[in-house]
Amino acid sequence: MSEAPRDAMTTPLRIGIAGLGTVGAGTFRLLRDNADLIERAAGRPLRVTAISARDRGRDRGIDLAGCLWVDNPLDLVTHPAVDVVVELVGGEDGVARALVEAALGQGKPVVTANKALLAHHGTAIGRLSRARRVPLGFEAAVAGGIPIIKALREGLAANRVTRVYGILNGTCNYVLSAMQQTQRDFGDILAEAQQLGYAEADPGLDIDGIDAAHKLAILAGVAFGTPVDLKAVYVEGIRHISALDIAYADELGYRIKLLGLARRTPQGIEQRVHPCMVPSSNPLAAVDGVFNAVVVEGDVVGRVVLQGRGAGAGPTASAVVADLIDIASGRGHAAQLADAPTGDASRSVGMEHHLGGCYIRLMVQDQPGVIADVAAALRNERISMEAMLQRGRAPGGTVPVVLTTHPGEEQAMRRALGEIALLAAMTEPPRMIRIET
Amino acid sequence: MSEAPRDAMTTPLRIGIAGLGTVGAGTFRLLRDNADLIERAAGRPLRVTAISARDRGRDRGIDLAGCLWVDNPLDLVTHPAVDVVVELVGGEDGVARALVEAALGQGKPVVTANKALLAHHGTAIGRLSRARRVPLGFEAAVAGGIPIIKALREGLAANRVTRVYGILNGTCNYVLSAMQQTQRDFGDILAEAQQLGYAEADPGLDIDGIDAAHKLAILAGVAFGTPVDLKAVYVEGIRHISALDIAYADELGYRIKLLGLARRTPQGIEQRVHPCMVPSSNPLAAVDGVFNAVVVEGDVVGRVVLQGRGAGAGPTASAVVADLIDIASGRGHAAQLADAPTGDASRSVGMEHHLGGCYIRLMVQDQPGVIADVAAALRNERISMEAMLQRGRAPGGTVPVVLTTHPGEEQAMRRALGEIALLAAMTEPPRMIRIET
Repeated sequence: MSEAPRDAMTTPLRIGIAGLGTVGAGTFRLLRDNADLIERAAGRPLRVTAISARDRGRDRGIDLAGCLWVDNPLDLVTHPAVDVVVELVGGEDGVARALVEAALGQGKPVVTANKALLAHHGTAIGRLSRARRVPLGFEAAVAGGIPIIKALREGLAANRVTRVYGILNGTCNYVLSAMQQTQRDFGDILAEAQQLGYAEADPGLDIDGIDAAHKLAILAGVAFGTPVDLKAVYVEGIRHISALDIAYADELGYRIKLLGLARRTPQGIEQRVHPCMVPSSNPLAAVDGVFNAVVVEGDVVGRVVLQGRGAGAGPTASAVVADLIDIASGRGHAAQLADAPTGDASRSVGMEHHLGGCYIRLMVQDQPGVIADVAAALRNERISMEAMLQRGRAPGGTVPVVLTTHPGEEQAMRRALGEIALLAAMTEPPRMIRIET
Repeated sequence: MSEAPRDAMTTPLRIGIAGLGTVGAGTFRLLRDNADLIERAAGRPLRVTAISARDRGRDRGIDLAGCLWVDNPLDLVTHPAVDVVVELVGGEDGVARALVEAALGQGKPVVTANKALLAHHGTAIGRLSRARRVPLGFEAAVAGGIPIIKALREGLAANRVTRVYGILNGTCNYVLSAMQQTQRDFGDILAEAQQLGYAEADPGLDIDGIDAAHKLAILAGVAFGTPVDLKAVYVEGIRHISALDIAYADELGYRIKLLGLARRTPQGIEQRVHPCMVPSSNPLAAVDGVFNAVVVEGDVVGRVVLQGRGAGAGPTASAVVADLIDIASGRGHAAQLADAPTGDASRSVGMEHHLGGCYIRLMVQDQPGVIADVAAALRNERISMEAMLQRGRAPGGTVPVVLTTHPGEEQAMRRALGEIALLAAMTEPPRMIRIET
C-alpha cells in the first residue's frame, strides 16, 4: 500500500530530554505509556535515547534503562543518537538558553515548555530557528495542554487576529475562584493553595502576574507575528484584591479574573496583565479553579475559546509530545515569533493610552460631601460615572464607596485617582479594577 | 537567509473551487482579503485558478476575472492549472462524491466541508486518501471555525481519547436557548428561527439530529481511529422538547442541549445524538445561541473544551483556508478516518446498552395511586428513582409528574416506560430526556 520512502516512516525519532522534574518525568512516561498511538499519529516510533538531569540517583518512578545518561545537557546537542532536544530545565537563562540556542544553531530541532526563556529571548531564538529553518515547538510553554499555539499558527491561520486574551495562570484563578466561593480573604486562600500544592512557597511569579505576562508575550508574538516584547507588557497582580471587591463584583454582575490581554490597535500592540471585572455572561467568567482558557478573536472566524488544564505533568507532557509528533512527521515548523514586517504593526502601545471602564473602591469617612468631591475629581478628568453604591452608614466611621465608570483613558483615570487619594476623607488608598467587556 | 528549495516556497498553490454558494464565495473572498497573511503562514501564495459552479451568470459580489470557469466540476481534477480541489458542492453522493474520489484517485489533494459525504463514505474516502498518500482536509466539515479536527489529529495526538462530545448543531442550540430564555414553545421558536435564517425552510436535517449525527460520526472516526460508522449513531431530535421540560430542567439545575456523544467503552464505541439534561455547572450549559462547542477527554490532558461559531460563511471559510495552508506548506495529511486496528476497538455498542440516568415527564390524571404504579414499573426493571416532583393539584384533571432516575441500562428504562405508557392514568406518552453528567 505504501509508496513513500520506507526509511522516514520506520526510523524512530530519537529524543534527548534535558530535565527530569515533574514535566520531564511526565513526558518520559507518556512516550512510554501511549507509544502505540503516538507512533500511529507520527508515522514512526518516538524513542527517548538520552537523558540529562541534575541528580542521576534520584528515584523518579521511571525506568531509565536503555537511555544514555549525559551529565552535561549540552552534550545532547552534539550526540549523534539524538535527533531532537527537549528542553525541560527551565529558567530564562543559563543552561536552558544555552541548550536551546546550541541545538538550533546546529540544526537540531527543539521542543521546550520554557515560557520564561521565550518571553525574554523569544525574538532572538525565533530568528535563529527561522534562519536555520529548524523546527522549534513550544506548545507547552503557554496554557499547558490547550493546543493554543497550534490553533493560532495553523487552525486559525487564515484570520487576522484582532485580540487574544485569557486566563493564563492557574494559581491566580484558583485563588480568585476560591475567594469568590468562600468569601474569604486573599491571604487565607493563598496559604491554603500553598498547602494544596496549587501555589509555590514563593508565590510571586504567579500572584504578581509575571508568569501570565510571560505567556501573554509569547501569545501576542504568535498571534500578531510581532517580536516577543515582554517589556511592553503592563503587569499588575492580584495581591490587592479583597473579599470586599469580590463581593461587590458579584453584586454588580462581574467575576474578578486575572487576565492577560493583547490587542491590535491602530497605534500598535497593547499587552497587559491585570485583574479584570469580567461580566458574568462572558465565557471566561465560568472558568474556575486551576483551569486556563484563551479567547482568540479573528476577523473571519469570530470568537473562538479554548479551555483546559494549564499546568501539571499530564497536560504539559501532552503538549510536549504533540510537538514531538509534529516534528517526527515533518509537520514541525520554525518559530513564527517575529515574522511580520516590522514598523507600525509591531510598535507597542503604552498602558497610559488604554481605554476602558473601571471599578473603583474607596474607603471613606462617612461624612457629607465626600461623594461630591470624588465626582468632581472624575469630572475634572472628563471621566463619567456609570454607577455608585454606598451601602450601610457609619456616621463618623469608615464605609466603602464603590463606583464604576464609563470608558476613559488610563492616564486620566490615574490622575483622577491621584486627586481622590488626597481627599481628607479617604482612610485608605483607592482601589481600582479595570472592567473588561 | 533561506536554504530551502526556492521553488516550493514561491510557487503559488493553485486552487480549484467547486461550488460557489455561501461557503464557496466566502472562501474565495477570504483568500483574496487576507492574501498577505495567508501567504506568510503558508510560505507561498494561495491562488484560486479555476471555478466551477452551477450558474455562471449569478452575481455573487466577487470578481471572478482571472479564474478559469469550468462547467463540469470533474474537469478541475484533470486540469493542469489546479493543484488542489476544494469541494463545496455538498450532498452525500452525486457530483461531490465523484469529484472527491476522482481527485484523490488521481493524487490531487482535496479540501471539503461536506459532512454528509464523509459521514456516509468517510471510511472509503479515507482509505483512498491513505492508499494514495494524498492529503484530505475536512476541518470545515465539523463545527465550522473551531479547529477541532486539527486538535484531535495533532494538538492532542498524544492522548488516548476516552470521550468526545459537544454541541454540534447551531440551529438546535439556538432553538433550545431561545426556548429557555423566553419560556416559549418549540414550534414558535422554530418559526422565528426560520424567519431569522437560523433554520432552513425544511428544518429536519438540523432539528431531527441528522446533521449532528454526521458530525459526530466524523469526530468519532478521528478521535478513535475507527471507521466512520454513521449507521451506528443513535439519533433523536428536539421536536418533542416542550416549554414544560425546559422549565423543569431549570428547576432541577440542568440545561437541555442537543449533544452528540462518542465514547470508548470496553465493549466498543458508543455514539449517540439526543437531547440531554446537562448540569448547569458543565461548560456546555453556558454555550448558547448558534455557537458550537466540543469537549475532548484525553487520558493525559484531561478535559479540553473548544468553542466557537459552528456555521456561516466566515467560520467555515476560515477552516477551509486553514486546510489549504496546511497543504500548501506540506503539513496536510491523509485522512485518519479508519487507521486503527480493526476488531474490538472499532466495534460499535448499541444504544440498548447505554447506561445513564433519565428525566421522565408524565402527564397523568390527578388521582391516588398513580405514583405507586409508576414506581412499581421502575422497580420491576431495577431502576431507582432519584427525585420526584409533582407540583400543583388538579383533582380529576391532568398534572405533570416529573422524576429523575439513577443510572440504569437503556433497554430496562425503555421497558419500564413501555409499562408506564400503558397505565390507565396516563393522558400522554411518557417523555424521557437522558441526563448527561
